[in-house]
Amino acid sequence: MSEAAELDAADPLAGFRDEFELPEGVIYLDGNSLGPLPKAARARMREVVETQWGVSLIRGWNDHDWMGAPTRVGDAIAGLIGAGQGEVIVADSTSANLFKLAVAAMQARPDRKVVLSEPGDFPTDLYMLEGAVRTLGQGRRLELRPAEAIEAALSEDVAVLVLCHAHYKTARIRDMTRLTAAAQAVGALVIWDLSHSAGVLEVDLNGCNADLAVGCGYKYLNGGPGAPAFLFVARRHQETLVSPLSGWMGHQAPFTFQDAYDPALGIQRFACGTPPVLGVSALECGVDIAARAGARAIRAKAAALTDLFIRRVEAGPAAAELRLVTPREAGLRGGHVSYAHPDGYAIVQALIARGVIGDFRDPDIARFGFSPLPLSFAEVARAADILGEVVATAQYDQPRFRQRAAVT
Amino acid sequence: MSEAAELDAADPLAGFRDEFELPEGVIYLDGNSLGPLPKAARARMREVVETQWGVSLIRGWNDHDWMGAPTRVGDAIAGLIGAGQGEVIVADSTSANLFKLAVAAMQARPDRKVVLSEPGDFPTDLYMLEGAVRTLGQGRRLELRPAEAIEAALSEDVAVLVLCHAHYKTARIRDMTRLTAAAQAVGALVIWDLSHSAGVLEVDLNGCNADLAVGCGYKYLNGGPGAPAFLFVARRHQETLVSPLSGWMGHQAPFTFQDAYDPALGIQRFACGTPPVLGVSALECGVDIAARAGARAIRAKAAALTDLFIRRVEAGPAAAELRLVTPREAGLRGGHVSYAHPDGYAIVQALIARGVIGDFRDPDIARFGFSPLPLSFAEVARAADILGEVVATAQYDQPRFRQRAAVT
Repeated sequence: MSEAAELDAADPLAGFRDEFELPEGVIYLDGNSLGPLPKAARARMREVVETQWGVSLIRGWNDHDWMGAPTRVGDAIAGLIGAGQGEVIVADSTSANLFKLAVAAMQARPDRKVVLSEPGDFPTDLYMLEGAVRTLGQGRRLELRPAEAIEAALSEDVAVLVLCHAHYKTARIRDMTRLTAAAQAVGALVIWDLSHSAGVLEVDLNGCNADLAVGCGYKYLNGGPGAPAFLFVARRHQETLVSPLSGWMGHQAPFTFQDAYDPALGIQRFACGTPPVLGVSALECGVDIAARAGARAIRAKAAALTDLFIRRVEAGPAAAELRLVTPREAGLRGGHVSYAHPDGYAIVQALIARGVIGDFRDPDIARFGFSPLPLSFAEVARAADILGEVVATAQYDQPRFRQRAAVT
Repeated sequence: MSEAAELDAADPLAGFRDEFELPEGVIYLDGNSLGPLPKAARARMREVVETQWGVSLIRGWNDHDWMGAPTRVGDAIAGLIGAGQGEVIVADSTSANLFKLAVAAMQARPDRKVVLSEPGDFPTDLYMLEGAVRTLGQGRRLELRPAEAIEAALSEDVAVLVLCHAHYKTARIRDMTRLTAAAQAVGALVIWDLSHSAGVLEVDLNGCNADLAVGCGYKYLNGGPGAPAFLFVARRHQETLVSPLSGWMGHQAPFTFQDAYDPALGIQRFACGTPPVLGVSALECGVDIAARAGARAIRAKAAALTDLFIRRVEAGPAAAELRLVTPREAGLRGGHVSYAHPDGYAIVQALIARGVIGDFRDPDIARFGFSPLPLSFAEVARAADILGEVVATAQYDQPRFRQRAAVT
């Protein structure tokens, strides 16, 4: 029995693979970018569109609890990221949620002018922070410091530190406990972006005394293309922080139609517009699968899958040509593995042509995501072999032009 | 032949009714709150979920042009509201879009401190404006003036005037041409909320020299529960206004993953996060139907449907008890008709029990929406008769408690 077959035989999560629709002939290593379709979501979407919308019509808001879906799904996500019930809500996009929390955090620290983050962190986070400081004005600014200089840059002028927990390119995991404590020691708040963590790593927000977090629904939570995102606000901050996007769904009594904004108590105040029912419904199916599998088991399988892939590539014919940019130590590594190669773009294209779907990130990164629930060890071993063969025998086009990759 | 039957026989839009799924035994007068399911959306959502997401996976961004959907659907909406190609994009919620445009407009008029609107206008608009002025700070404030006092309140301290084109409660239509000109005469910008207009009225944004607008996807555009919204920015403003929600989808080159935000040229800069593919796809089906019917014909039928309803109620047994709060003159009236009655809530519940679905708005408003494409004149006549009978014979429970109505 091969090593991969042994790992599959011993995998307590092996049964979850059958809960996803996966096309024949594809080894899908891009579940970190867009997770595959849960079979339950296929059925759920027929039900939501054809029966709930089609038949219940406006009554769906009550009869199918569309109104409660954002907090219901938020509570399910909470169990995956170490948050409590009533601390997470599904709403808007990751970008918009980051804006809400960054502005609210800066307004809670009005005398501090700096938002601190890291260059090369996920771009939309940096763009949103630029927008947030430009909007608040009054001397506020975004300062970017390399990972190793973040702690030294924490001062009493820092209102909020914003970092991705797992880096979108390298998969390096930040030390959430340590950085949260360091920022709080100077009186700053911290916002964690869990986009590459939720549904693949074991996050313990409350164990780290985290303040605030945002995250993505369409990656490891398998919520569908452009799924709504989520946000976390620790209970101790819920009554003091106010969302700048103070829409009616965050109002204490949205259907009294009063003119003045009274923020809801609790996490609901961070909602804004009408909930995107189709998107939340699909997301609920993906989150449900992860919740049943449990974050600890998922994280263990992610470590084992990435470990197998790295070892297998290293034992293969292209080991010398592929430079691993992901940490070798499993505890420092998220759910994906990235290699730098000058022909990274062409290599990814050649792999896709062979049914191994990964993605490319500027300037030279071939990135492979190992979503634990829809993948088997056998597939991962096979993908490593194909990568080795393609690179070692240069079975790819020489790059002629750079086509931009799709959504991360 | 009855009047209603004659009107149906002569209705050039009668054939569109068959493009919607409508449950048996229901006369649906709440399409102004949640439009019914287009049959095309039923098929489209199966395709998008099961084939595009399920099989194409990440390749869907290119293979099915998910990335282009927000501007493609925006262009289709543009044709319904008198906007040009490249002036409308589908994104986020109406609330979030209003925030983007209000902040951008205030930043374009930095010396002016006032955002002007009307008390009793749709609440989330007022809440978002509160949030926008609180976020920008520096003495900015929201001033509310009754409809008749708006023009007198326009001064050189007004940065932006924000009004709903058709009022959510009374259906009264504002004079877009006149108010736009009056605001521009003092150097202010104007944001129109078209939530109760798009897909039912003939809006001519460019004919009015409009600056900015937002609107809802789930009402008369039949985009599904919580559908994404749209926004309009006149071409002359597109290079100068900058969205505070400066997310990667509004970046000039989102997939170069650079650290600094360079806003896209054109309407794309008002996008923020990853497009909600499921929601945009459903919305496209609803918009397509309206685009084929054409705004002029839709508007004419809306006027005729509401006219028939009002006349029929007045000729019926409850005329004296129901106070019309919607303008009697068709040219001043949107797509819904509202009556005040002390037992409004109970009356609406009794009608729902008889299959006539309208809704209730505080404190005493029974509201009936006449979405032109899914409704026949015969249904509207029958609904008027049932309303008359229920009220005249007091066939409703006396109000015991107020249950809040669902999403407007």
